[in-house]
Amino acid sequence: MDWTDGNTTIGDIKARLKAFNADRDWEQFHTPKDLAICLSTEVAELLEVFLWKRPDDEIAMDRVKEELADVTICALNLAARLEVDLAAAVEQKIASNGERYPVELARGRADKYDALGETASDS
Amino acid sequence: MDWTDGNTTIGDIKARLKAFNADRDWEQFHTPKDLAICLSTEVAELLEVFLWKRPDDEIAMDRVKEELADVTICALNLAARLEVDLAAAVEQKIASNGERYPVELARGRADKYDALGETASDS
Amino acid sequence: MDWTDGNTTIGDIKARLKAFNADRDWEQFHTPKDLAICLSTEVAELLEVFLWKRPDDEIAMDRVKEELADVTICALNLAARLEVDLAAAVEQKIASNGERYPVELARGRADKYDALGETASDS
Amino acid sequence: MDWTDGNTTIGDIKARLKAFNADRDWEQFHTPKDLAICLSTEVAELLEVFLWKRPDDEIAMDRVKEELADVTICALNLAARLEVDLAAAVEQKIASNGERYPVELARGRADKYDALGETASDS
Repeated sequence: MDWTDGNTTIGDIKARLKAFNADRDWEQFHTPKDLAICLSTEVAELLEVFLWKRPDDEIAMDRVKEELADVTICALNLAARLEVDLAAAVEQKIASNGERYPVELARGRADKYDALGETASDS
Repeated sequence: MDWTDGNTTIGDIKARLKAFNADRDWEQFHTPKDLAICLSTEVAELLEVFLWKRPDDEIAMDRVKEELADVTICALNLAARLEVDLAAAVEQKIASNGERYPVELARGRADKYDALGETASDS
Repeated sequence: MDWTDGNTTIGDIKARLKAFNADRDWEQFHTPKDLAICLSTEVAELLEVFLWKRPDDEIAMDRVKEELADVTICALNLAARLEVDLAAAVEQKIASNGERYPVELARGRADKYDALGETASDS
Repeated sequence: MDWTDGNTTIGDIKARLKAFNADRDWEQFHTPKDLAICLSTEVAELLEVFLWKRPDDEIAMDRVKEELADVTICALNLAARLEVDLAAAVEQKIASNGERYPVELARGRADKYDALGETASDS
């Protein structure tokens, strides 16, 4: 065990998953559509940890870690299968979000970008 | 634009998202429960790309990239909010999956781990 | 056991669920947000039945029935909590879909309504 | 417009949907797997209405009604496709839930049934 967020690239995780799947001959099942379904079911297991929980209730952190890991594994398997460079896609999306949510308009607001303009003149 | 899977750590992405959210004073909205809901809605947008698609149908790769990026952003915001080291959690989960799905039993099978033992002697 | 699709109204199901929840003093947990999360997790359990399945693979019908029932229960609990007349909402939505997907344009096509016009003149 | 929860059976809705789909020759797209995916994406649109909302925030009821209707339509299309009598399945599930969550144990508690026994003797 020596991976940490600081020393582990997206490519490192992808490479290990690729070997894991190849060892088990699982590529045959990994259609993009099924990987997207897999991701959807794992996210629901993560969401379930928060079901019925009020803000002060304790959260089962062991389950959160495990389900977040499952979500990441599914997402990276899908990115690998479709040959998506995920880091590049994320950088591009953050840049795009920066334009959609300019600091001066979005600051302190939870509105969607297409609702930001409406009240900009009010603030 | 210079991020690639090979040169970008999970920590790099987390750091940029932290600055992005701080600039907009969005931490106040980012409860763990809402971040998990956000992740769930983004995954559904990704899944929708595959809806009604048959194996040979063309997939809208621009949408796939964008939605995969959104999923990653939500997941990393949640990991950051709950102070989860995601790379460590993924390494631990891959190790755990390796025990649940030993190569000799899991090879070429899409069954869940708790169904693997039943037919192991048949193969 | 005497409910069938032909003799059971939405109101019948709502009434039984209302009594079920009141007996257990569960209304206090049934915030609309949590009921929507509940619905989301139940749908994922239904979706999981189809994960990795190819068109000719057998489907676990017992699980399908149980998960479809769970989905319906969550949806009706949410409708009841928000005082939505679900049958009226469905009738209105079917009428709206009829306008969005006119028979002459939508026949034999799986496209979203906003893509129907583009190729209507081609067919 | 004359459907209400009190006068509309599950069978009434199924029958209208069947005609709607037949008019558009949509049965060919309605594989069980895709209908389950459809349901999943509609539920996420419903869930999104509650994203970032605090308990006292106003909810967009028009969207709730529309998305609840979409969820119901998808669920009934799936039930019809797999020849599931949904009302019977719901009645059976409510009976099963009644056994899993007996009034004396479950009253006022949001725990899952498999956690109910643990503290029953404490209360």
